[in-house]
Amino acid sequence: MTSLTVKEAAERLRSFDNVLILTHLRPDGDTVGSAAALCEGLRALGKTAYLLPNPGLTDTTAPYFRPCAAWAGFEPRQVVSVDIATVDLLPENARPYADRVDLAIDHHPSFEGFGRENLVRPSAAAAGEIIYDILAELGPITAEMALPLYVAVATDCGCFAYNNTTAHTHAVAAALLQTGIDFHAVNKTFFRTKSRKRLALEAAMLSEIEYHDRERVAVLAVPLSLIARVQATETDAEDLSALGGQIEGVDCAVTMRELRPDVWKFSLRTGPRVNATKACALLGGGGHAAAAGCTVEAPFAEAKRRMLEAIAQVVPDFTL
Amino acid sequence: MTSLTVKEAAERLRSFDNVLILTHLRPDGDTVGSAAALCEGLRALGKTAYLLPNPGLTDTTAPYFRPCAAWAGFEPRQVVSVDIATVDLLPENARPYADRVDLAIDHHPSFEGFGRENLVRPSAAAAGEIIYDILAELGPITAEMALPLYVAVATDCGCFAYNNTTAHTHAVAAALLQTGIDFHAVNKTFFRTKSRKRLALEAAMLSEIEYHDRERVAVLAVPLSLIARVQATETDAEDLSALGGQIEGVDCAVTMRELRPDVWKFSLRTGPRVNATKACALLGGGGHAAAAGCTVEAPFAEAKRRMLEAIAQVVPDFTL
Repeated sequence: MTSLTVKEAAERLRSFDNVLILTHLRPDGDTVGSAAALCEGLRALGKTAYLLPNPGLTDTTAPYFRPCAAWAGFEPRQVVSVDIATVDLLPENARPYADRVDLAIDHHPSFEGFGRENLVRPSAAAAGEIIYDILAELGPITAEMALPLYVAVATDCGCFAYNNTTAHTHAVAAALLQTGIDFHAVNKTFFRTKSRKRLALEAAMLSEIEYHDRERVAVLAVPLSLIARVQATETDAEDLSALGGQIEGVDCAVTMRELRPDVWKFSLRTGPRVNATKACALLGGGGHAAAAGCTVEAPFAEAKRRMLEAIAQVVPDFTL
Repeated sequence: MTSLTVKEAAERLRSFDNVLILTHLRPDGDTVGSAAALCEGLRALGKTAYLLPNPGLTDTTAPYFRPCAAWAGFEPRQVVSVDIATVDLLPENARPYADRVDLAIDHHPSFEGFGRENLVRPSAAAAGEIIYDILAELGPITAEMALPLYVAVATDCGCFAYNNTTAHTHAVAAALLQTGIDFHAVNKTFFRTKSRKRLALEAAMLSEIEYHDRERVAVLAVPLSLIARVQATETDAEDLSALGGQIEGVDCAVTMRELRPDVWKFSLRTGPRVNATKACALLGGGGHAAAAGCTVEAPFAEAKRRMLEAIAQVVPDFTL
C-alpha cells in the first residue's frame, strides 16, 4: 500500500482537477461532511469537483451533500474516496470506480488501502479530522468547508463524548468554530432531536426493563409487536442498545430485538466485570469485551434465559 | 469594581498563601471543578490551599472536591471565590467570608464584582476556562489540575453541545486531553448515566405526551402522583423540561410539573415561531424568548387549557 503524508496528499490534490469524490454505503455524517468539505476546498482552489450521488442519504445528511452532487454526465479525471475502509463499502453506483481510486483517505483500522495512493490515520476520531489537516495545508478554511467538517467530526465522536475523542479532535473543532459556523444547529439536528416513533420505542422499552443479578444486569426488549404498534422504521430503531448502557448501577445492559418471529438479536453493553464477547461466544456470537452480540432462535422467555445463563457462566459472582 | 486581566490574577495568586477557595450554593461541576483545579495549581506552586466544605455536594461532584476540602480550624490569609455571581449564592457556611473575598473569578453576565479584586469573562462557557488560562500562566497544567478542569468545562457546556461553547472552550479541552486524563469516565458519569427513577419518570412522561397545534406543541406532565409512584427525588426530576425539547417537529415543548396539589409550574422550551416569555407573561411568569416559565393554580385540565390559550394568543397561526 502506498501511504502518503498529509502534506503529500495536499500536493496531489493541488495537481488534480475534475475530481469525483466517493462516499460510503449507508452514508453517515463523517463520509458526507468530509466529502463535501473536500469538494468545497478543491473548488476554492478554482478546481471542478463533485460528489458521486449516494442513494442512502437521510434528511439530516442530504443538505450537506446536495450543493456538491455531481450531474449525470460528469467525467472525472481523478477519483478520491473518503471514510471508506474497503471497496465492499462502495454504494452500487460507485462500483465502476472501485479500481480507479487515485487517492483513498480514511481513519478505520480495517482500511484496506485500495487506492493508487492512500492516507490512513486510525487514531483520528473522524475522517473529517484528516480532511481538515489537508485543507489547512491547501489554504484558509472557510465557513463553507468548516460547516460540513464540523458535521463530520462531531457525529463520529458523539459530540465529543465518545472514547475516540482526542486532543486533536478538540483542536480541529476549535479551528472550525473560529469561522463562525452555526454549530449549534448541527448539534440540535444530530444530537438533540428524536422522532416521535423513536421516543415511543424508548418509552416502551424503559417501562418494561427487567433487572437481574442484584440489579446489575438490565434486559430491554424490542419485540416485533412493539415495532408494529409504534410503526417504527429502521432509522427509528437504530442503536437502541445504547439506551440500557446509561442506567445507573447497571454494568451489563442486554438489548434483545426480535428480527423475525422467535429470532432474537442480542446486543450487550458491559463494564469491566462482564466480558460481553465471552458471553456472546457461548451462543455463537462475538464482538468486543465491552460490546458484543449474538442471535438466538427461540421464544422470548427461552431466548432470554439462555442469554442470562451465558452471562452467568462468564461472571463468577452472578446471582440469578 | 476592580477588574483584573488573567496575567494580573495569576500574579496575585502567586503572591497569595494559605488560600481558602469558595464554591457556590447547590454546587455544580463548574464551581467544584474550577475550585479543585485552582487548589491543585496553588499547591503545585508550594502553597497551602483548601476548599471551604460545601454541604450541597452530590455523589458525582464530591470525588473531585474531597482531596481539597479544608479542615475545621484552617485560618486562611486570602479568600478566592470561583463561579459565584453574587454573595447571595454563597452557602451558609461561606457567609462569614462574604466581605473578605480577595479575588472573585466568574463567568456569569450577572456577576456583581463583590471581591476586593475581580476577574469576569461572560463569554466563557465555564469558569473552568478562565481558571485554565490563569493556571497556564502559573506553570505547566498537570493531570491533577486537568481532570477537575475537564469536569468544570464539559459540564457547563453540555459536553460541547450547548450554544455557549466557543473555539476557546474546545482549545482548552484540547490542552486538557493532552495530559492523558480519563475524560471518558467523566463523560460517562455526567452525561451518560441516569438513575432508574429518572428513567422511570422519563418513560412515563414520554408515553403520555399530548400534541396540539398540528403536532407542533407537545405537553408533558409530571403530576405529584407520578413523583410518588416512582419515589423520585429532586435530583431525579431535575431539568425534565429538556425532554420535550428534543421531539422532532415540535417547536413548543410544554412541561407542567405539579408542585403542590393543583399548583402547576410550567416550563416552555420553544423555537423562533413561539415567544415563550410572551406566552408565560400572560400567566404572570417570564424568562427568555426560547425558555420561560410560570405557575398556575388550577386542576390539571384547567391549568393546561390556560397555558395553551396563552400560547395561542401569542402565536398567530396556532390551531387548537
